[in-house]
Amino acid sequence: MPQLRKDPVLKQWVIISPERGKRPHDFKPERGGPVEEQGPCPFCEGNEHLTPNETMAFRRNGTLANQPGWWVRVIPDQHPILTPTGDAGREGIGMFDAMNSIGVHEVVIETPSHHQTLQSANLDQVREVIWAYKQRLLEIKKNPRFKHFLVVKNSGRGVSSFAHSHSHIVATPIIPKRIEEEIDGAREYFHYHDRCIYCDIIRQEIQEPSRIVFQDNLFMVFCPFASRFPFEMLIIPKVHQPFFETLDNDHVQGFAQALQAALKRMDRLLPDIPYNFILHTSPCSDSYRDFFHWHVEIIPKLTKVAGFEWGSGFYINPTPPEDAAQMLREALS
Amino acid sequence: MPQLRKDPVLKQWVIISPERGKRPHDFKPERGGPVEEQGPCPFCEGNEHLTPNETMAFRRNGTLANQPGWWVRVIPDQHPILTPTGDAGREGIGMFDAMNSIGVHEVVIETPSHHQTLQSANLDQVREVIWAYKQRLLEIKKNPRFKHFLVVKNSGRGVSSFAHSHSHIVATPIIPKRIEEEIDGAREYFHYHDRCIYCDIIRQEIQEPSRIVFQDNLFMVFCPFASRFPFEMLIIPKVHQPFFETLDNDHVQGFAQALQAALKRMDRLLPDIPYNFILHTSPCSDSYRDFFHWHVEIIPKLTKVAGFEWGSGFYINPTPPEDAAQMLREALS
Repeated sequence: MPQLRKDPVLKQWVIISPERGKRPHDFKPERGGPVEEQGPCPFCEGNEHLTPNETMAFRRNGTLANQPGWWVRVIPDQHPILTPTGDAGREGIGMFDAMNSIGVHEVVIETPSHHQTLQSANLDQVREVIWAYKQRLLEIKKNPRFKHFLVVKNSGRGVSSFAHSHSHIVATPIIPKRIEEEIDGAREYFHYHDRCIYCDIIRQEIQEPSRIVFQDNLFMVFCPFASRFPFEMLIIPKVHQPFFETLDNDHVQGFAQALQAALKRMDRLLPDIPYNFILHTSPCSDSYRDFFHWHVEIIPKLTKVAGFEWGSGFYINPTPPEDAAQMLREALS
Repeated sequence: MPQLRKDPVLKQWVIISPERGKRPHDFKPERGGPVEEQGPCPFCEGNEHLTPNETMAFRRNGTLANQPGWWVRVIPDQHPILTPTGDAGREGIGMFDAMNSIGVHEVVIETPSHHQTLQSANLDQVREVIWAYKQRLLEIKKNPRFKHFLVVKNSGRGVSSFAHSHSHIVATPIIPKRIEEEIDGAREYFHYHDRCIYCDIIRQEIQEPSRIVFQDNLFMVFCPFASRFPFEMLIIPKVHQPFFETLDNDHVQGFAQALQAALKRMDRLLPDIPYNFILHTSPCSDSYRDFFHWHVEIIPKLTKVAGFEWGSGFYINPTPPEDAAQMLREALS
């Protein structure tokens, strides 16, 4: 079973996962380009027998679980980084802290068809994927042992093992460091100003819209002022909402539109670039309600993070976000 | 001039560097393998005219600056990420914070010969490189506008633009986030225990030496308990020392030995793998003297950091550090 270990200085948890590739020859050199296919795709309609049993699917009336007839399908990951069984097993090892890596790791298969993407799918399909995220998060959040919930998409060679469009839902027994930092920053700002920092950022970006890529009355897509990466984008609801998973109908539709607006522009400007998208929703606790504001980060993988960044947490971004936003805006006009 | 911008939530500084590649077609796909050579190497002996004027060199008596005859040479970076002139120019842009990216960015050319590396060089040469780091840091630290100092080595395709062995010295006007976190963690531990956390880690690792790769009476090389990356190593002096740059003679020699012990093992086990090494020394202030302990991180670039890690700060390491340490120990025995 993988183990969670905490760095005593940085207070950062790491999953030590001996079940995954581990000896020197297991690491393959990285290459660009599309994901290579090996054998039949387990995510395609008709190949349901190649995956673990589904935890949920949106499917036509009368079709059976783990059979064709679905349009979005959710399964446990075949090689999960966290497992839902067992106890937390918190222990001290001398001065170090470790625990069992309990949690949830599911895969959302976003489409039954192998070559469809969130960019190329019609808006209805994107909306259904968002409904699936929402429904699974609501269900998984019922388990009080899990403290945090991420939706992550790794797309393209080097960031994903499968070409077929999919994303991950990951529930962890601790609040990950990066999220803790967001919470701390947002809490501190709220204590000082009695306002949500994200709401203030939205107001400021609208006033001087040079970093805005897309907006309508519900959502905004923009390149953050201190973007760490070229063409990094943030998607955020304009009205304060701590939780993604309690989205209403209109916001599901609005988010589908904003997400596709961002991805289509990125795809036009940077064809076939691998990218990540990460959904940050408030951890389960209600006490973050006033100051946490859910959002999605989209990061095209254009630059390699070098020693300076690892060693310092100090990023170098060669594309000013104002330039990036302008190019992204114009990519679809 | 590049600008420093601060993320208001995460309090992370980013260098926005418009002088570097920035339009979509400027980003090239990544590939593995050795660095490709284009034209004559500016770091080779005899090509001194292809670089900016040296700030320092160890060279034979009677040879002239910017001429052959050196064995270690330090030059300003041709495309610096920070520049030493101008004022800090701290300004608020609405709710955001920015400043000029003043600082120092120098390149240490570690050898006059194109195919020599820190692994293959003789120990005397490695020691001379360490003297060069030390001497430049002592000099650069005299400028009170700079708050932090890193030595970084990016080696191999995808992490470096040059095949010729070299490293970077970077002085910044702020303490980078990652270092601030180390300081905070170490300070907190010291307040509680009145002991340096790194000294305690050293004691614990020696007691149960399964993660130790190499040690002698002055230095220890080990794979940290919560290693974020496979085969990650830390090199640390066994006796408490906040500052790298005040190393005595014996420790310069000892560090050269430990560094080469680590790099030779990595090279044997993982031939031609790109890697980073990062030297963390205490920021200039004397107030960290009791609890900061200088060290070097070595990170082979085997895995790609995916969305989950970016989005969460929660790393997945497929190689337990105990296994990594054993393989590294045995690589040279």
